[in-house]
Amino acid sequence: MKRLSILGSTGSIGTSTLDVVEAFPELFVVEALAAGGNIDRLAAQIERHRPRFVCVKDDEIAAALRARVGAGPEIAVGPSGLVQAATLDGVDLVVSALVGARGLPPTHAALELGRDVALANKEALVVAGRHMTDCARSAGAEILPVDSEHNALHQCLRGERIEEVRNLWLTASGGPFRGRSAEELVRVDAQQALQHPTWSMGAKITIDSATLMNKGLEVIEAHWLFALPPERIRVVVHPQSIVHSMIELIDGSFKAQLGVTDMRHPIQYALSWPERLSTAMPPFDPVAVGRLDFEAPDVALFPCLRLAYEALEAGGAAPAALNAANEVAVESFLAAGIGFLDIPAAIEAVLERHAGDRAESLEAVLEVDAAARRTAAHWLEQRVGG
Amino acid sequence: MKRLSILGSTGSIGTSTLDVVEAFPELFVVEALAAGGNIDRLAAQIERHRPRFVCVKDDEIAAALRARVGAGPEIAVGPSGLVQAATLDGVDLVVSALVGARGLPPTHAALELGRDVALANKEALVVAGRHMTDCARSAGAEILPVDSEHNALHQCLRGERIEEVRNLWLTASGGPFRGRSAEELVRVDAQQALQHPTWSMGAKITIDSATLMNKGLEVIEAHWLFALPPERIRVVVHPQSIVHSMIELIDGSFKAQLGVTDMRHPIQYALSWPERLSTAMPPFDPVAVGRLDFEAPDVALFPCLRLAYEALEAGGAAPAALNAANEVAVESFLAAGIGFLDIPAAIEAVLERHAGDRAESLEAVLEVDAAARRTAAHWLEQRVGG
Repeated sequence: MKRLSILGSTGSIGTSTLDVVEAFPELFVVEALAAGGNIDRLAAQIERHRPRFVCVKDDEIAAALRARVGAGPEIAVGPSGLVQAATLDGVDLVVSALVGARGLPPTHAALELGRDVALANKEALVVAGRHMTDCARSAGAEILPVDSEHNALHQCLRGERIEEVRNLWLTASGGPFRGRSAEELVRVDAQQALQHPTWSMGAKITIDSATLMNKGLEVIEAHWLFALPPERIRVVVHPQSIVHSMIELIDGSFKAQLGVTDMRHPIQYALSWPERLSTAMPPFDPVAVGRLDFEAPDVALFPCLRLAYEALEAGGAAPAALNAANEVAVESFLAAGIGFLDIPAAIEAVLERHAGDRAESLEAVLEVDAAARRTAAHWLEQRVGG
Repeated sequence: MKRLSILGSTGSIGTSTLDVVEAFPELFVVEALAAGGNIDRLAAQIERHRPRFVCVKDDEIAAALRARVGAGPEIAVGPSGLVQAATLDGVDLVVSALVGARGLPPTHAALELGRDVALANKEALVVAGRHMTDCARSAGAEILPVDSEHNALHQCLRGERIEEVRNLWLTASGGPFRGRSAEELVRVDAQQALQHPTWSMGAKITIDSATLMNKGLEVIEAHWLFALPPERIRVVVHPQSIVHSMIELIDGSFKAQLGVTDMRHPIQYALSWPERLSTAMPPFDPVAVGRLDFEAPDVALFPCLRLAYEALEAGGAAPAALNAANEVAVESFLAAGIGFLDIPAAIEAVLERHAGDRAESLEAVLEVDAAARRTAAHWLEQRVGG
């Protein structure tokens, strides 16, 4: 019986995690749930899984939730409540699926205790990769990536030595604008960018997929997870999203992980690791899929990927600044404030300003994050005004 | 320093093995070479690698070789010489690359000593799979498959438990007649069948690839190597021969091994296992390859694959009879004695006759092999005569 604390339980990853838990009631038990303000869904999850600890955004939501669920779980609030949920006694695995910087402190706290973390919170590695992985290593905790690409790499690396790996190959769907011209990209709007060809995801991540920033952030994450330098983390466009990623070994052999595009697969892998569990989910069928394509990413047309490599090379807090600028720019694009090609322009401007910022502690990184957001907002104001 | 005995050193696998040895002179040393009658090539290999033991076909060849190489290696002959080469003191790894049944006794002798074997001799597993794998298991020897498909499976299975594998997926190029009609196949001749689309191999194995018997034999080999029942060893046609094979795990995840079609890759893997060695050979380039296709094999049109499954299900000496009948039939096809579709017909007739034959010892299996050859020759005589 594995005891879970699920941070971000009402989001897409959180609900899929609970689907997996429900498929194996004899193997997993939910000790803690943390969510923001989706009381209806959270109340239903509490009803079903009877956690002993719950964390919500603030006191108001806590009171409303208490009225709904009656006696039962302890209910905590805010950042300190998240850390409590991550460090609760007797928890074996923390599912870190909060969105944004608020996922960092509880993830770090769990790793510090030597607790395995199923990691879906991108910021933990993009913004604070060194701190998270240093912490995991010294505490003997395993970071189990939930993202399908890094999960694929984790699977491919089983039984291999990282010293015998020549390159990691992250696959990218290429997004909805693969093959478009620069002239066309100037005019695309949020609605077009939200049509992702293979995965059904939230708005922010779908835009990141359209700009290829999603892949850029994954390069940064892969760097921290697997300790390979940026130039040995390659990106290849693979429109079908069936090959989730590949490793290239020093002897020229490639190993790939393949599967259907359903997040319950990598989630289940992370939950059950080091074991695998038999599932009734429909498997990948090579004959039905029929064809897998690969092509080079167009870095000239999608500069976000280049900017991510540059931020990783620059080191320090540059990836944090990149991520913050991207969030602000994507938000503005979704609100129809700026154009699609303004997203990389905004990021480039912010990176120039914050290139030398240091990242000596988690707190320092979070300060750069905030400062980069201000810089980005300022740049965007001028852009939209001008 | 790994000390090698190479059985079948002048054939295609043998010479590729020596290419790998020459690329890593500080890691491998050749202790023994065994070959048939290609004195020129063998003399050159002796000159270069200075083995202390050599085995050739017979006394005549031995005398001619002695005249060429002067003093130097001990020269033995025939079946007993092969066993001596396989069991020579101080050898760490035996490369078993003889063609046909004569490879069985030395391979078995090496495994009995607990010696790791890089196995390219198909018959060892097709004809005597149970004996070889039982022997390897009880002596603690590792069988390292050199065949690209089984080598791929061996790589995919690193870090995985066989109990967590749902299916093995062998890829098949589909051969030169993929997509042809039954009417066309009646008329094809040996010259057409020898045009293999992706691998450059000997005539016998190229015909086996055209009939899909090659894949049928590989199903049998995979059964013995990895101990999965026939219905969990699947075949998928993959014309590019880049995905060398795949495993499907119980959680729905697939792992594939990919690479260029160069036998030096699986040979090097087998030689260096459990380590991997950095190679300067040009690697697989996903972008240059661009596209990978998969389709179901046409078992109605290529009945050899079905016959192999049936022989494996029948058990006992049926796979030995299948293999013997196939060899005789292919030889007749190559000599323009019978038509392409007579190959499976001959095998089916032989299998009916030898379905119940037992396989309790290596000797018993070899007797069935000989008897099946006589049955096949008799069937073919009647066919050609009629």
